[in-house]
Amino acid sequence: MSTTSQPNDIDLADVFAYVDQHRQEFLDRLLEYVRMPSISAHGVGMAEVAEHIAGVVSGLGMRTQVLPTEGWPMVLGESPPVPGAPTVLLYGHYDVQPPDPLEAWASPPFEPEVRDGRVYGRGVGDNKGQHFAQIIALESLLACRGVLPCTVKVLLEGEEEIGSPRMPGFVAANREQLAPDLVITSDGPVDESGRPRILFGVRGVLSFELRARGANRDLHSGNWGGIAPNPLWTLVHLLASMKNERGEVTIDGFYDDVLPGSTAEQAALARLPVDVAGVQERLGIESLDEPVERGYHERLTAWPTFTINGLHGGYGGPGSKTVLPHEAVAKCDIRLVEAQRADDIFAKVRAHVEQHAPGVEIVHQSAMDSSKTPIDSPFKEPIRRAIRAAQGVDPLLVPAMGGSLPEYVFTKTLGVPAFTVPYANADEANHAPNENLEVERFFAGIRTGAAMLLYLGASERDESKGVR
Amino acid sequence: MSTTSQPNDIDLADVFAYVDQHRQEFLDRLLEYVRMPSISAHGVGMAEVAEHIAGVVSGLGMRTQVLPTEGWPMVLGESPPVPGAPTVLLYGHYDVQPPDPLEAWASPPFEPEVRDGRVYGRGVGDNKGQHFAQIIALESLLACRGVLPCTVKVLLEGEEEIGSPRMPGFVAANREQLAPDLVITSDGPVDESGRPRILFGVRGVLSFELRARGANRDLHSGNWGGIAPNPLWTLVHLLASMKNERGEVTIDGFYDDVLPGSTAEQAALARLPVDVAGVQERLGIESLDEPVERGYHERLTAWPTFTINGLHGGYGGPGSKTVLPHEAVAKCDIRLVEAQRADDIFAKVRAHVEQHAPGVEIVHQSAMDSSKTPIDSPFKEPIRRAIRAAQGVDPLLVPAMGGSLPEYVFTKTLGVPAFTVPYANADEANHAPNENLEVERFFAGIRTGAAMLLYLGASERDESKGVR
Repeated sequence: MSTTSQPNDIDLADVFAYVDQHRQEFLDRLLEYVRMPSISAHGVGMAEVAEHIAGVVSGLGMRTQVLPTEGWPMVLGESPPVPGAPTVLLYGHYDVQPPDPLEAWASPPFEPEVRDGRVYGRGVGDNKGQHFAQIIALESLLACRGVLPCTVKVLLEGEEEIGSPRMPGFVAANREQLAPDLVITSDGPVDESGRPRILFGVRGVLSFELRARGANRDLHSGNWGGIAPNPLWTLVHLLASMKNERGEVTIDGFYDDVLPGSTAEQAALARLPVDVAGVQERLGIESLDEPVERGYHERLTAWPTFTINGLHGGYGGPGSKTVLPHEAVAKCDIRLVEAQRADDIFAKVRAHVEQHAPGVEIVHQSAMDSSKTPIDSPFKEPIRRAIRAAQGVDPLLVPAMGGSLPEYVFTKTLGVPAFTVPYANADEANHAPNENLEVERFFAGIRTGAAMLLYLGASERDESKGVR
Repeated sequence: MSTTSQPNDIDLADVFAYVDQHRQEFLDRLLEYVRMPSISAHGVGMAEVAEHIAGVVSGLGMRTQVLPTEGWPMVLGESPPVPGAPTVLLYGHYDVQPPDPLEAWASPPFEPEVRDGRVYGRGVGDNKGQHFAQIIALESLLACRGVLPCTVKVLLEGEEEIGSPRMPGFVAANREQLAPDLVITSDGPVDESGRPRILFGVRGVLSFELRARGANRDLHSGNWGGIAPNPLWTLVHLLASMKNERGEVTIDGFYDDVLPGSTAEQAALARLPVDVAGVQERLGIESLDEPVERGYHERLTAWPTFTINGLHGGYGGPGSKTVLPHEAVAKCDIRLVEAQRADDIFAKVRAHVEQHAPGVEIVHQSAMDSSKTPIDSPFKEPIRRAIRAAQGVDPLLVPAMGGSLPEYVFTKTLGVPAFTVPYANADEANHAPNENLEVERFFAGIRTGAAMLLYLGASERDESKGVR
């Protein structure tokens, strides 16, 4: 634990006490929110949940709109302006991942349950529990102080889990209305060690599907094996031509824009704790993935990845079935590092597919570019101090996170710094069965959300324009 | 059409007329049989269907037993002995393939339906409609002639679709009681051209599963991609190391026992009709599978195949899901040619897996060796004449079929010739959705079954012991 006595410490006791006194109520309201499915990929429950969370934001006295898009709506809340303080945009998403495989859940994904100090339910960590903590932070600040310490805008989208296709257009079209000085996103997990962290960037992501077809129907492998091409073999050979056994992506030009990070970033990476043995034990793996020579944090921040998310074709039931399947599909994602562009990488993947397996269809599903905020941004210090004040421990400073968020629309389109301050436990199982959020991290998130706004408001007044 | 006037033509008019007069009744009884599920892989309906078909056989005055095994029972019927005539064992199987994927069926798999001259239903071609035709042939012969022309034994097993694991032991243990002079199996399809055929051998088959595991749970590809190994990539690389893009199996020693057929077999293959363009059009494929240089019939009879029957891991629902899956399974079969032995090939596959992907589990599922009967067997001629008499067209003589049947227990264990005389249309879709049997082929099968016994009985008497 680091010291909390700093020259410009801020008194947060009233706000933290308020949060403590309302634990049960806040938790119940979180469960109510998680109980409402909002699966963007399947179009389930979206409009209802947008209205629900807009109602909560509106209840804080914020001007709140549910703005239609060509997809699911944006929820935008705006506080009254606070002169002399920065405008903080709090970004989150009210959609969740599909819950399959359902049979792997210990309790139903949309019947949230508290067990052993955790809330289990789809979306509780990714991202409902985290932006709900931000909203409750605003509520707590208003209850204790009557006013917010910064101008706050809350932007919640409904399509983050399908690649945020409407975010670039929305942010570009509403540049004047949004006009933040900085953006804070609470999403993803804290460090494996349990320590909080500030992430200054995110990897981009490109999702696509490869569809192979053989004959016009499933065939008997004895009568037709050796005659009709097998789409599973086609995908096996195509995929094996795209990444080798040593983990190197073998698509022409794939690594062209993979550049070493700045000296400051490399130094920051070197300072991060690492416990490879602990990670291996928790995941139940005997070694890290290929290529073996890469450093732990470099793997997640400095290198792109190529993941097969799913591959399905032919018989998958019990026992054996001597079938020659007629189609097979692979779903893939590629995580991109800073100088790689999703459009460019997709073009390279498509060229590879056309060259190696011209009969295979490639379908672009979604893409987000990466994002990077300078690790020496002047907003870093107030955010760092707020986390320390709220959680009693210094956050790690991480140049980029492994996951993806549409922060490029803030850093690249609006040109403002964007920070990710995750509240979820490292084993939140986001995108997986039994997704969960530690109850204490939800309350720590509320305290942190309140503290960040108080420190950002104070730092702006302390340091005038210098902070920008 | 070849001529039907041969020196020793046999008068079949009464039997064929009887079959014609009972078309609707025989068809109704076939539908009743197909309506009863008997899925050996899932253990559904097996005992009931064994009793049902045993009742039909028993109704012919045959001594009929439902003989328990460690798996599903054998149904064995024995006619009274017919002195001076050969003993013909008619083999078939009352179990069927699993019906998945259910959604691909135009009518439910166990609610057989007649559409456009075909019966649609699981198992109607493979094998219920074919051995039921044999049984109805016996019934028709008895109705017209009062006695059978040969000693007939009917052996129906319930585990052919899971690899006939009990057949070797059963046949070896009942060698004296079975003691056939020849075995006839009606299973699989006629030639693509529609012509009947006599098959003198079958390929063997080896089924196994490859199971790869990564972490102990599904993970977020952004947070854990590059850290945790991906079992789908593991299977892709393992499978690609087992068979290359040119279709060559690259497992050490795999082709050691793949030998050229006899001169007579090669000549028989060369005489078979071939319509590659027609096959491609019917299957909707632009080219035959790799390796491209192999002859059409050589592919199905002279070369082994390695088919991935199914490969499943990770997300397979709509849209995208950025998951890093924790397990993946590939189901495979290998069709074996004459000198290859299933045990030997499995040992070679296992050695390859242990060397290339030691973390992958390989599970043996089932195996059958291949079978071969000399293409100049003296029983060939009566069977050929019978088919011509019943169907008006000369059958093709095929050294081996692409599919597998447990005929090795007859040729290798009992040392007697075994012939396959398929009745099903080439597009029967066995092992696939919308399995079907042309109604006319069912009736042709009944006529053929009766004719074969009459010709075999007559040839034995004509040619005395010489025929054996």
